[in-house]
Amino acid sequence: MENLIITRKQIEQAITYPEIIQAMEEAFYNYSQGKSVVPPVGNLNLEKAGGEVHIKSGFIKDDDYYVVKIASHFKGNRERGIPPGNGVMLLFCQNTGKLVAILHDEGYLTDLRTAAAGALVARVLAPQKINSIGIVGTGRQAFLQLALLKEVTDCRDVIVFGRSKERVKEFGARCELKGFTIHPSTSLKQLAASCNLIVTTTSADRPLIMAEDVREGTHITGVGADSPGKQELDPALFKRASVVAVDSRSQCFQFGDTAHALQRGMISEDDVVEIGDILADASLGRRSEGDITIADLTGVAVQDMAAARLVYHKVIKGACIA
Amino acid sequence: MENLIITRKQIEQAITYPEIIQAMEEAFYNYSQGKSVVPPVGNLNLEKAGGEVHIKSGFIKDDDYYVVKIASHFKGNRERGIPPGNGVMLLFCQNTGKLVAILHDEGYLTDLRTAAAGALVARVLAPQKINSIGIVGTGRQAFLQLALLKEVTDCRDVIVFGRSKERVKEFGARCELKGFTIHPSTSLKQLAASCNLIVTTTSADRPLIMAEDVREGTHITGVGADSPGKQELDPALFKRASVVAVDSRSQCFQFGDTAHALQRGMISEDDVVEIGDILADASLGRRSEGDITIADLTGVAVQDMAAARLVYHKVIKGACIA
Repeated sequence: MENLIITRKQIEQAITYPEIIQAMEEAFYNYSQGKSVVPPVGNLNLEKAGGEVHIKSGFIKDDDYYVVKIASHFKGNRERGIPPGNGVMLLFCQNTGKLVAILHDEGYLTDLRTAAAGALVARVLAPQKINSIGIVGTGRQAFLQLALLKEVTDCRDVIVFGRSKERVKEFGARCELKGFTIHPSTSLKQLAASCNLIVTTTSADRPLIMAEDVREGTHITGVGADSPGKQELDPALFKRASVVAVDSRSQCFQFGDTAHALQRGMISEDDVVEIGDILADASLGRRSEGDITIADLTGVAVQDMAAARLVYHKVIKGACIA
Repeated sequence: MENLIITRKQIEQAITYPEIIQAMEEAFYNYSQGKSVVPPVGNLNLEKAGGEVHIKSGFIKDDDYYVVKIASHFKGNRERGIPPGNGVMLLFCQNTGKLVAILHDEGYLTDLRTAAAGALVARVLAPQKINSIGIVGTGRQAFLQLALLKEVTDCRDVIVFGRSKERVKEFGARCELKGFTIHPSTSLKQLAASCNLIVTTTSADRPLIMAEDVREGTHITGVGADSPGKQELDPALFKRASVVAVDSRSQCFQFGDTAHALQRGMISEDDVVEIGDILADASLGRRSEGDITIADLTGVAVQDMAAARLVYHKVIKGACIA
């Protein structure tokens, strides 16, 4: 019983991309059906070091576990040569409170479940025929989004935008190894005009994708605006969209690109639908190939729960015996 | 780096009672001096199993760590033959977010730091000459309170009150092994009339110690009322008290025995002083042997931080190198 820790390496080896996408599908469905309990996110601000810590917790009512996740982002880490993101997930038994497993994922599961949510919403909302994928950002999340999109689309043609030429080049090289054809772009306008599936993965605090640049029949997924102040999408784009899908209505009313669009009066709360509701009723999603659709992902604890239980079952190869 | 876990056994062996009392003294001092950051407590209610989970987090500003503690209480566990309390504390580096250690204390540190706080307030507030200690409750916390009081008083004469004769007997036997003389009592009135140091350690939701029963010159520590709804002390007792000390003013204004006394108008917020402030200025404490003093302990994250860093330094025998 001493050996509770599951390492990042074990996690990376244990779960496949289709499995994590499937887990996100169940997570969003359960969440929107009211089958989960997800208390407010806890925050610690380590001002001295510019660190941000999020504590997310929750459970699915008829599941065996509850999960507590502590994820951090210390921007100064890059200068130290270590990744800015870090984290650990704890899995406890819902009947006894016993600690079942410690997933020392170092932030990997948060990255992976975010990318898997991106793939899921692309499968659910993107047009059938994707001619070119637009990726904004060149970080770890940008790479994972592409890696998981491979599971849901045949398109291998990618236009990428990033502020650093060097990082765009490195990113392109990594993606070409994965079988993508990469076209760097220095213009977000051109990227938007050329792609009908766009994913934004930056930490921007102002709009990058403008309403007038997006063509009919495009799906846009925003994953960067995951806390107050952040923004990637033009609020006016929400007015053009036929579907505004979010992971959590209550959370996206508070922050994320959806909150900005609401504040600007571009849409009303009634225009916003949860991904889990679209999964339960496809008529709430895209209705024609000409629709513009948006998915605003801010990250909910139910995704962490689903990721943690998937890892546990795959690594331990059994159910919770507590 | 894989071996991050410090087990309960290691923790029990590593720290002495004087050390944990000293750690609590520093913790309360830092807290009241505004040197710590302690966000609101997170709660998960596992209704199905009658489980309660508290998530406490925080840090001392000029320290190396931040701490997240997950502690649970599942009342159904007793029937399963396992302890109701459980928990784990995580120690992270304040500069990088790196996970430094996992203290798998199974709730032991929460119990220990609570008892150490009881000993500390007895040292600070109790009258010089204690003739008899009154203990209300016969659980693990009751035992630990006595065990730690041994460090701060020479009195070995104890009157104990518990609802189950059997449990009183077991408790008495354990305490006599520790050098105490135990007198069971079936009357709280008699206990209050006979003792000038009283500690209540129950999960009661109505007053056990009545104002009119307490004699002049008594100190009372309440540790049971640690969440909304719980209560152990007669609100009128607060009116008689010369000192109403709490671990955290903001927390005790919300719940605990102090909150009940405030709601009933027996005292005002200005009558409530933090233990950390008494440590900084002894004139805020007991002024004469005839004073009645109260300490209301609800438990604050800064105690968990202090306990966690003490364990880490004792077990790893070095500072945080992250």
